[in-house]
Amino acid sequence: MAATGREFFTAKTVAEALSDFRPAHRTRTETVTLEEAAGRVPATAIVAGEALPGFDRSSVDGYAVRAQDTFGASESIPAYLSLAGGVAMGAAADLELPTHGAIAVPTGGALPAGADAVVMIEYTQEAMTGTIEVVRPVAPGEGIVRADEDMAPGQVAAPAGMPLRAQDVAMLAALGITELEVHVPPAVTILATGDELIAPGAGPLGPGQIRDALSSSVGALVREAGGRPRSPQIVRDDPGALQAALERALEESDVVVICAGSSVGARDETAAAVAAVSGAEVWCHGLAIKPGKPTLLAASDGIPIIGLPGNPRSALVVFRLIGMPVVRRAGGGTAEHRAPSMMRQLSRDLPSAAGRLDVVQVRLSGEAAVEPIFGPSALLSVLTAADGYVIVPDEANGLPAGETVEVFLYR
Amino acid sequence: MAATGREFFTAKTVAEALSDFRPAHRTRTETVTLEEAAGRVPATAIVAGEALPGFDRSSVDGYAVRAQDTFGASESIPAYLSLAGGVAMGAAADLELPTHGAIAVPTGGALPAGADAVVMIEYTQEAMTGTIEVVRPVAPGEGIVRADEDMAPGQVAAPAGMPLRAQDVAMLAALGITELEVHVPPAVTILATGDELIAPGAGPLGPGQIRDALSSSVGALVREAGGRPRSPQIVRDDPGALQAALERALEESDVVVICAGSSVGARDETAAAVAAVSGAEVWCHGLAIKPGKPTLLAASDGIPIIGLPGNPRSALVVFRLIGMPVVRRAGGGTAEHRAPSMMRQLSRDLPSAAGRLDVVQVRLSGEAAVEPIFGPSALLSVLTAADGYVIVPDEANGLPAGETVEVFLYR
Repeated sequence: MAATGREFFTAKTVAEALSDFRPAHRTRTETVTLEEAAGRVPATAIVAGEALPGFDRSSVDGYAVRAQDTFGASESIPAYLSLAGGVAMGAAADLELPTHGAIAVPTGGALPAGADAVVMIEYTQEAMTGTIEVVRPVAPGEGIVRADEDMAPGQVAAPAGMPLRAQDVAMLAALGITELEVHVPPAVTILATGDELIAPGAGPLGPGQIRDALSSSVGALVREAGGRPRSPQIVRDDPGALQAALERALEESDVVVICAGSSVGARDETAAAVAAVSGAEVWCHGLAIKPGKPTLLAASDGIPIIGLPGNPRSALVVFRLIGMPVVRRAGGGTAEHRAPSMMRQLSRDLPSAAGRLDVVQVRLSGEAAVEPIFGPSALLSVLTAADGYVIVPDEANGLPAGETVEVFLYR
Repeated sequence: MAATGREFFTAKTVAEALSDFRPAHRTRTETVTLEEAAGRVPATAIVAGEALPGFDRSSVDGYAVRAQDTFGASESIPAYLSLAGGVAMGAAADLELPTHGAIAVPTGGALPAGADAVVMIEYTQEAMTGTIEVVRPVAPGEGIVRADEDMAPGQVAAPAGMPLRAQDVAMLAALGITELEVHVPPAVTILATGDELIAPGAGPLGPGQIRDALSSSVGALVREAGGRPRSPQIVRDDPGALQAALERALEESDVVVICAGSSVGARDETAAAVAAVSGAEVWCHGLAIKPGKPTLLAASDGIPIIGLPGNPRSALVVFRLIGMPVVRRAGGGTAEHRAPSMMRQLSRDLPSAAGRLDVVQVRLSGEAAVEPIFGPSALLSVLTAADGYVIVPDEANGLPAGETVEVFLYR
């Protein structure tokens, strides 16, 4: 089995793949509006052009005052201040605070000139018309958000390389930034190879045929990673056809994924096709992971090529762990991304060989436990029955029942 | 402060809101293709119409045999079988296994008639042309995936109410299910109220004005929850205008969100507008959460109405916790959704009052710690600086430094 030998020769660990497989290509940038901004990756840091909130603003419903006029005030000896009007929302505070005066301001209202604090309405009462009692002192600055306290002009409102979250969109909106420069979503070509494959919708199965389960599902993971899957292509098990499809894909894509046929021969064809592309380099052929050992990672002119195992279950496990970070990076992402997880107790022993990372599908069970799902690696139903997966690290010889483990959740 | 009193009168806990605020409206269904299926919510269980893989299939590269012909085989006393040809990928196995015979099959190849196991190629060698040595016995069924082992016709391939994950899409593709009935994404109208508000792109700020930060950012969270935000609308602080906008929104939407003005008066206007809509019922006005106390939950003819606090930071916290599950349910989702999280040690004390749930923004710090970010609740920058949040439960009087806490991560 020379093929197996060669796979091991260039095998890497998952940790090595995640840290060292870094093809240089990044997508170009484009301008999008605020409505399309969530999840997109800014190409450069986005800098505030104006101050937020933009004016000194009350953060409570109450009375704008000079703080010193309230010093020593208490329930028994209130400070008496003369009410000199009110500020309306969304309007200038064109009143000026008189000596020993108070001006009513709503939360978010502009602070009148001369005031340096706002007393909450709860600590006041209108003693008689035109006069308020203040029963607690306020310090200067209390009850106020300064004009540039949330963001000053020139400050970074959103860094480069991090997908914009809802609160980042809120910040950009608040700053009046309605167009921004982000990376174009990586175009990902998915080539499914195998003489046994037919498209999912292509009529009844002939003898020995199976439907292509990977193009659409890997496409779903590409989208989840911020990429854009191109129309799926099924390529015959023929070295020339695969090489031609790969060369075309490299011209039109930011990432290329090859879903290999399931036999040893088909896996070798992926490697052969990559090797035949001028300028392409195989980074690893074989990963110390189960399932997913026959993974190939390569690059051509900085464009990553990911050769997935032919087994759909292995392919989805590997693409989630290795492929999605590659797509995120091609799209300008610089941050590590975490799958949702929870801590649970293993309901039974997980056997595993040291020297490889095991990805074990699990089902949540009861309030606190998690149960491994075993089954032939060819079964997709093991993956659809799973709520998430547990990683048994390279160095571990399995994990005992009762151990608390991190369960990474599918959504 | 009558308004505050009334808020407390109908206040609920977050747990009560999550379990009991269940307006009945669900979106209608539509047919989508497999390519659009990921993340969508099936309206009814999707049932397999054919078997998967559809034929008895080899799960290894090797030789199809009768298991009994290998019983007792070992390195020292191999079983000798006559090689009777090979099966090609994607083709029928039109050979029949002769007595004491073996037929070469690739991984995924069809099992020839008469065979009941496949010996891995590693445990064989071609002793002389036309004869193989088998050095390990196989049990019946070994090296084989049965025709309906992954999925039998009539089995549920994907349940109703659960957003389809990549592996579910793979299963549907493998079963040839290329069109499916899913819930339409809930249309969500976001009404931003406040005389101080202008649209993010609406020229320079006038005195006392601020830009609407919520429409686009709540819209981003709506999308994340599988909904479709409608064009944002800014409504003046005028009871009649808000009521009219709300009535129109209820006719055109599956969920309505009102971002209240920030003052006490503006909050009351939301409640008044809801109360004035015929058939609308306020479920709670006030939530035992900080930030986010002035949250209003209501429904009209089963359509949820969520009144968010005017403060953008509070509004985003509440919408993430309470609003996103409401949108998911309106779109037919029945599963609980978990935010990604990790366990970390608090770097300092978190003060909190018992009787309310505190959502504290935190920043990851070093390898194992998490640091709370304090700051006036009006500051959006506290939220943009955060990597996630920690929940201090209702019953807790704060959490001490050094405590291990679950950090829910923003993405």
